[in-house]
Amino acid sequence: MFEGINMSSNYIRFSALQERVISAEEAASFIQDGMVIGMSGFTRAGEAKAIPLALANQERKSPLKITLVTGASLGNDLDKKLTEKGILARRMPFQVDSTLRKAINHAEVMFIDQHLSETVEQMRNFTLKRPDIAIVEAVAISEDGFIIPTTSVGNSASFIELADKILIEINTSVNPAFEGAHDVYIPEKRPNRAPIPLTHVDDRIGTKGIPFDSEKVLGIVFNDLPDSPSTVTEPDLETQAIADHLIRFFENEVKTGNLPKNLGPLQAGIGSIANAVLTGFKDAPFEDLVMYSEVLQDSTFELIDAGKMTFASGCSITLSKKCSDRVFNNLDKYKDKFVLRPQEISNHPEIVRRLGIISINTALEFDIYGNVNSTHVGGTKMMNGIGGSGDFARNAHLAIFVTKSIAKGGAISSVVPMVSHVDHTEHDTDVLVTEQGLADLRGLAPRERAKVIIENCVHPDYKDAVADYFERACAKGGHTPHLLKEAIEWHTNFEEHGTMQPKSI
Amino acid sequence: MFEGINMSSNYIRFSALQERVISAEEAASFIQDGMVIGMSGFTRAGEAKAIPLALANQERKSPLKITLVTGASLGNDLDKKLTEKGILARRMPFQVDSTLRKAINHAEVMFIDQHLSETVEQMRNFTLKRPDIAIVEAVAISEDGFIIPTTSVGNSASFIELADKILIEINTSVNPAFEGAHDVYIPEKRPNRAPIPLTHVDDRIGTKGIPFDSEKVLGIVFNDLPDSPSTVTEPDLETQAIADHLIRFFENEVKTGNLPKNLGPLQAGIGSIANAVLTGFKDAPFEDLVMYSEVLQDSTFELIDAGKMTFASGCSITLSKKCSDRVFNNLDKYKDKFVLRPQEISNHPEIVRRLGIISINTALEFDIYGNVNSTHVGGTKMMNGIGGSGDFARNAHLAIFVTKSIAKGGAISSVVPMVSHVDHTEHDTDVLVTEQGLADLRGLAPRERAKVIIENCVHPDYKDAVADYFERACAKGGHTPHLLKEAIEWHTNFEEHGTMQPKSI
Repeated sequence: MFEGINMSSNYIRFSALQERVISAEEAASFIQDGMVIGMSGFTRAGEAKAIPLALANQERKSPLKITLVTGASLGNDLDKKLTEKGILARRMPFQVDSTLRKAINHAEVMFIDQHLSETVEQMRNFTLKRPDIAIVEAVAISEDGFIIPTTSVGNSASFIELADKILIEINTSVNPAFEGAHDVYIPEKRPNRAPIPLTHVDDRIGTKGIPFDSEKVLGIVFNDLPDSPSTVTEPDLETQAIADHLIRFFENEVKTGNLPKNLGPLQAGIGSIANAVLTGFKDAPFEDLVMYSEVLQDSTFELIDAGKMTFASGCSITLSKKCSDRVFNNLDKYKDKFVLRPQEISNHPEIVRRLGIISINTALEFDIYGNVNSTHVGGTKMMNGIGGSGDFARNAHLAIFVTKSIAKGGAISSVVPMVSHVDHTEHDTDVLVTEQGLADLRGLAPRERAKVIIENCVHPDYKDAVADYFERACAKGGHTPHLLKEAIEWHTNFEEHGTMQPKSI
Repeated sequence: MFEGINMSSNYIRFSALQERVISAEEAASFIQDGMVIGMSGFTRAGEAKAIPLALANQERKSPLKITLVTGASLGNDLDKKLTEKGILARRMPFQVDSTLRKAINHAEVMFIDQHLSETVEQMRNFTLKRPDIAIVEAVAISEDGFIIPTTSVGNSASFIELADKILIEINTSVNPAFEGAHDVYIPEKRPNRAPIPLTHVDDRIGTKGIPFDSEKVLGIVFNDLPDSPSTVTEPDLETQAIADHLIRFFENEVKTGNLPKNLGPLQAGIGSIANAVLTGFKDAPFEDLVMYSEVLQDSTFELIDAGKMTFASGCSITLSKKCSDRVFNNLDKYKDKFVLRPQEISNHPEIVRRLGIISINTALEFDIYGNVNSTHVGGTKMMNGIGGSGDFARNAHLAIFVTKSIAKGGAISSVVPMVSHVDHTEHDTDVLVTEQGLADLRGLAPRERAKVIIENCVHPDYKDAVADYFERACAKGGHTPHLLKEAIEWHTNFEEHGTMQPKSI
């Protein structure tokens, strides 16, 4: 779409920068061995594209190893390409790419799995190195000096503030009407930090774009590559059952007066299950829903279209091809119904606790006491990362985790005596749901939790085995009864025999 | 000290209540089977005393079982006595009593182990049952209608707001000069909750006491029983070494400019190790220290006396006999240097993140990847509870956990391949310290964390075994390498053979 420098003044309205357009290759050449690069991009939305691609394609005589910090996962196979070229020494705070995943599990890339609200806070307070260069995708640079992000804000605002130098990619394939869809707020410096003044999901507390020091800009690159579409799959029978259990639970909470009629602000994690649960709300008897979440997915806009949701706040917008055509080509229709914020704000503990968010995230597995593993297969292999689930669950009004009760065709029970890795402790989980049913753990002690989890969530093929474990563990005693060796065998049996199935053991 | 109703007008200055004095026995008779009782008391400070003692001594024909919710642990052996009489059906959110501990581990009492900032939030949002009766210790009831707490605020303010009925104990053994030492603030109701307006540790944002509805008062009881003194032991060689490691770390952080000269607000958990660490600051080169913590312990006032600490905010004050004589008899000298708040505010994630607290808490054990067990011996038996450690660690600027490297005369290594229970995940731990040394985990991936933990924290008797485990686990692969069966054997070996010592296995 970009047709040369002449057109650039539509995109670069800040006059001091109009002569700073460079090629992606030239931009990539600024990236030196050992650098920390802070790049835009959150769940395949709004990542810089041309410069990392040029970097991956660069011919080099000596090795180049960088630390790549983003908002969350990247699209356009960037993590794959950079991994294949051996460019990634360190990567944080989240990823979903299978090639990178393999490299992480082979210790070829050092991965730091972080709560997504914390990365830039940790840079600010010197826990993490600050970026040498920030690379940020934009729809425009405004005449009054703001970088206007595209489909995600992620960590871009703080990267730009904290980096020594800045590279900007202007994506001409993104509808320029995205300008005005963002609200950029960065918490003040300690020790005089003020409260974050957000009290309702649709509050605007910041600026329309990212303020920046034009002296730090190394160059501006144009790209016309679209975001990769979301990989979320359609709801199936199990995800529909999970949604149904949750909706019945919410109906009852409203009936008893425990929840308001619109439930309160909703958060849903990325992925097919959480998305399916939200889609299930289309036919539920709740009105005026609002969302305070990380990622706005297809389900968000389905609920808006259905007149069920009045406003959604996120830090990125990740849609299927079909949904993005509908939404991005009709931004005027949606623009007063959503806002994109920095992920530090979309996920901030202060806001999550204040608003009383209902948080729905996907578990890899959970145990009979309510501890949740979101990240590690068999306690050792990284899947994707904890993402924002901890930011939300830890401070939510209701922390809900969902998963199908079995995986790998029944070889794995997602409900086990003891999880092989803990990302969310039982202190932080209120409700667990599988297609089998819903376990309401509120106000229960561990032994009571185990009973309702076993009764409601375990797949029939595993129910007797889990119940038997629990009974024998209780006989041995303790506040959280366990038979440690046996608990671990559920995981090692799968590792050694390919199934947790008791009858195969 | 109390000498009859005539004297009571000094304590009950709110005239409508002056005729409402009753005996402890009469007050106890209001407590019925099945009730939820919300009682003052936090770390052996400021619990109601006469009424629970009368309850324990009551003659009954039919069983009485209650849910007892407090701020944290109780003094005066109340938990012991109530447990022995079989009165406790449920108990939350924290305890330290050995008799109750045994009953919890035998499933005779259902214990709900909670983040201490969350109990009243959960009552407010219907996750937990609200109290039928609140029982709160006070130094006075002011003429303008406030209950003035004694040595802790804990959860008392919200218990009084949320309970159907109120019983007040006035403790005549507490220096009345405690009036003015409290700052009572309760977060507003959702969905229109405003930011908590606290931005500095010495801010006062609430009222001098607890507002209440006098119609709900069932009666007022007098007691003259002092708080039980703190059981904190003197620093020993190991705790001194831990303090020294930490102080060197902080010195370096100040030198590099990572931390300000006064470090930032400090939080220290209860117990001998954390107290010893703080005491160690007396001889450290830091000035103008401030504290934003739960419990103000001996070390707080030692630092104030030494001119090292300018202000301390907490929700309770738990001192040794010697220190309490000095502080409580000279309150005028200390009163502008400390404040007591509700535990929801002293531990609030919003404030902890805003202020950038340096949090120092004690671990039972931690593992080579930085996961921390604060609560469960051998993964099954409850020790005390998570307390506020999660409130602080999860949101702190620096989350530090300390422990001695071995326990039980060397039979237990406090640094293990995999903890038997997780209260704090590796996402939330920045620095681990034993008397052997300090592991700075900031910005490290799991395999890197393991190296610095093994190098710095493990006791020499266990170092080769832990290093050998890690090396073989790495050879097997994964982001967080583990040999699950072997990892668990560290715990089962102790269970079965009385030692984790590799040579004895």
